[in-house]
Amino acid sequence: MDLYGRDLITSQEWAVEELEAVLDLAARMKADRYGPAYTSLLRHKTFFMFFYNPSVRTRQSFEVAATELGGHAQFLEPKAMRLKTAKTAGETVEDAAQVMSRYAAGLGIRILEDQIGAYGEGDALLREYARWGSIPVISMAHDKFHPCQGLADIMGWSEWFGAGPGKGVDPTVLKGKKLLLSWGHGALVRSWSSVQEAILIASRFGMDVTMAYPEGFDLDPQVMGWAKDNCRANGRTFEITHDSQAGYEGAHVVYARHWMSPQAYQDGQLQKARETEMALRYPEWICDAAKMALTDNAIFTHPMPVDRGSEVTDEVASGPRSCVYDVAENRLHVQKAVLALTMGGR
Amino acid sequence: MDLYGRDLITSQEWAVEELEAVLDLAARMKADRYGPAYTSLLRHKTFFMFFYNPSVRTRQSFEVAATELGGHAQFLEPKAMRLKTAKTAGETVEDAAQVMSRYAAGLGIRILEDQIGAYGEGDALLREYARWGSIPVISMAHDKFHPCQGLADIMGWSEWFGAGPGKGVDPTVLKGKKLLLSWGHGALVRSWSSVQEAILIASRFGMDVTMAYPEGFDLDPQVMGWAKDNCRANGRTFEITHDSQAGYEGAHVVYARHWMSPQAYQDGQLQKARETEMALRYPEWICDAAKMALTDNAIFTHPMPVDRGSEVTDEVASGPRSCVYDVAENRLHVQKAVLALTMGGR
Amino acid sequence: MDLYGRDLITSQEWAVEELEAVLDLAARMKADRYGPAYTSLLRHKTFFMFFYNPSVRTRQSFEVAATELGGHAQFLEPKAMRLKTAKTAGETVEDAAQVMSRYAAGLGIRILEDQIGAYGEGDALLREYARWGSIPVISMAHDKFHPCQGLADIMGWSEWFGAGPGKGVDPTVLKGKKLLLSWGHGALVRSWSSVQEAILIASRFGMDVTMAYPEGFDLDPQVMGWAKDNCRANGRTFEITHDSQAGYEGAHVVYARHWMSPQAYQDGQLQKARETEMALRYPEWICDAAKMALTDNAIFTHPMPVDRGSEVTDEVASGPRSCVYDVAENRLHVQKAVLALTMGGR
Repeated sequence: MDLYGRDLITSQEWAVEELEAVLDLAARMKADRYGPAYTSLLRHKTFFMFFYNPSVRTRQSFEVAATELGGHAQFLEPKAMRLKTAKTAGETVEDAAQVMSRYAAGLGIRILEDQIGAYGEGDALLREYARWGSIPVISMAHDKFHPCQGLADIMGWSEWFGAGPGKGVDPTVLKGKKLLLSWGHGALVRSWSSVQEAILIASRFGMDVTMAYPEGFDLDPQVMGWAKDNCRANGRTFEITHDSQAGYEGAHVVYARHWMSPQAYQDGQLQKARETEMALRYPEWICDAAKMALTDNAIFTHPMPVDRGSEVTDEVASGPRSCVYDVAENRLHVQKAVLALTMGGR
Repeated sequence: MDLYGRDLITSQEWAVEELEAVLDLAARMKADRYGPAYTSLLRHKTFFMFFYNPSVRTRQSFEVAATELGGHAQFLEPKAMRLKTAKTAGETVEDAAQVMSRYAAGLGIRILEDQIGAYGEGDALLREYARWGSIPVISMAHDKFHPCQGLADIMGWSEWFGAGPGKGVDPTVLKGKKLLLSWGHGALVRSWSSVQEAILIASRFGMDVTMAYPEGFDLDPQVMGWAKDNCRANGRTFEITHDSQAGYEGAHVVYARHWMSPQAYQDGQLQKARETEMALRYPEWICDAAKMALTDNAIFTHPMPVDRGSEVTDEVASGPRSCVYDVAENRLHVQKAVLALTMGGR
Repeated sequence: MDLYGRDLITSQEWAVEELEAVLDLAARMKADRYGPAYTSLLRHKTFFMFFYNPSVRTRQSFEVAATELGGHAQFLEPKAMRLKTAKTAGETVEDAAQVMSRYAAGLGIRILEDQIGAYGEGDALLREYARWGSIPVISMAHDKFHPCQGLADIMGWSEWFGAGPGKGVDPTVLKGKKLLLSWGHGALVRSWSSVQEAILIASRFGMDVTMAYPEGFDLDPQVMGWAKDNCRANGRTFEITHDSQAGYEGAHVVYARHWMSPQAYQDGQLQKARETEMALRYPEWICDAAKMALTDNAIFTHPMPVDRGSEVTDEVASGPRSCVYDVAENRLHVQKAVLALTMGGR
């Protein structure tokens, strides 16, 4: 299997065996963090990180990843670039991407809801860079997908249902387990990327998927369709409920997080104030101990930052079945594996 | 002596022997700057630098330090983090610090007077990170303390009273020497961190301490109390004068710098305009050649940036007894030693 | 030949043999990009990059250069520094430069048209840093010059007229070739640095130089005088035309780019709106296929970002005789060579 040069825009576009190769390498890297087998894989090479949106954790984990592989991640804010748009003079992506391909081993891009005028524009930008550049384009979270978060989720859940964090990853333990992906109320308006990636990758690895959210908070219909197809192909169920409690019954993994509504964009921009107001209307959509008691001893997962007291209570978020820090740590390991496999060793 | 994993928030919380170990290693690193004994101590490891306040010199010296130890310092601006506050939704320090501890070998924090609403809030934030994280928290200057500046001061003064810059450090040469720490007028409103650290560490190393400042410019009474206690424990004097000239008599080290008044905060914010106006009221509080002539051939020291023409004349700042560049250089060496001792080699 | 410690503010101040040494090393580094002969030349050393103006490509190429040499380029935004000016308190360049010289192996500075109040102020600032610091000061583009762009131009053109990109550099192939440097219309108001450097270095390497621009768009008369003198010393021609087409006849290299007028500054600031308006007045000043047909099979060159549709048509910019990406790539290689020769190996 050769992943050298491959883009990673969503896990849905990689074969399950390819995702397993990432998880396997990530587990070995986690077990031998500074081991000599890994610390030269990006030696003297540069990974460009394009942050259209600021981020702390994503930047931390990618920059640490490149450093631990012997390379360097360059933090770039494209606001310093004058890109050509319909209205303004500037450089084309055609030119920018081709020159970057001469300098770097790969390009990560992060572009979220508030840097675009309509859902899908971020995804289109990543694909434009991928079209013109000759180096791998890796999503560091964009409006549609967040593949490294999805891989970290699967790695963390597999550890918890397997031998435990740091003791290897066997994603087959997730087959037949039930994932509840529940909307959460809160004042932080959030993109669809993490939750869409989660239902896609969970359904690829044979989980039953239940989505729970207030009416009016559907995700991208195309992505929900893919998740449904993934479940069907594995002989698993894909269900939707608008009840804040029903989905918890029998769940093994509870993922509770806010996401914005499909009406978030109007007149070419994110209606942040309106979305915040809507997000606060449903206080019953919080994950708490009473709901967790309905599950099959489920673990609690979240891509962070956790909006404590809104999406989830402190009792659950800091409780003994919370895997949030392990999943967060796994961002580092899966990203090391992705960088190494797509850019390393040549 | 094992300093691995230790926080450094103020030198006052480390034993004198521990501070001496830092100075000794710093001197060896200075004498053999790129020597193989040191260039792998942080190999492939990351030091997070959290700059709540921008800085050039502190960033330069910490990032160079990590590079020379074979590691990488990641420059982070926490404004990109959405931290939970009394008024806003966001992530807790509990969550942020625990995840960072999975990624990095250590965390430096810089937070100064204009990023807080009251004196002490910066110190509290550092201690909150230290409480939740499992990696060392190092102050890169905060509202109360500046331990790396204090160590660089002692290193530089020891060199000047010993064999000279770069020729080893023996802080016992400072015993019984008189430090004059004098307020200076000027338009740059400055925090208490450097001067408070200076009187604490100087008094630990057996110096007599005289503070000189216009009435109304007292520092933190708790810190002044500690400095007094340190002097008493060493059989040394701790004196205060409000005369701009008297303290120079017999001084061996003159440290002239502006600091703001204890009334700097009101209604939850720094009153910068008022402080600037007050700072300019006392033009006689400048260190000049006439005052230096009263000393016992004192050296002039300053943590930089020097406000020339206000705190000190060019004649003194650029004169033959100025140690300011040597002290500034020593920031690098003491920080290399601190990083190596608290984070390196495992 | 020893270039260790040398400033590089314009190619005009280096001997032709010294520039040839850079080009020769750059060609060897390009042919053996991660070769062990080069990857330790800046090992554990730091290159400070001072970006008074943001930049993507310049930052990318310098930071990659330092990484590939085993060192680290530190990205610094001097807005975080409080430098003393005629009107404000702050630190002097005297102090800043001397301390930086204790930390780093070299200092790059980028300061362009909109960060200054009059043409020449940026150049003066670089020379002030060079005066006080003891480490090399390298221009990363400033208001007057852009030496690394000039070196990349010569390298790229030599490759195209020689054995081809990546197959060695012999700048003697440029002797007697005709460079047309033509003004281009467009909405991006641009500094004189790249074009001034181009006519200086092209004339040093024995090219005939023709400049074409609308009346009123003269460059710095001193620089144009130097270019004329360089041509005369080599027995070559230096011509100026105000016809948008005439200069193409017989050209071997066509360089078409906008630059601002000599009246760009008024009352101590750049008159950006007026310059944009003026720049759009001359739509006939575009490089297109019809004009290129008049040349002696010329290559098209540009320092990027290309303002497609204004300075040049897509047909030419993306055509088979466009060397723009090769020249852009060469920024990396010449900068590696400059860093290695001025800062490396000791």
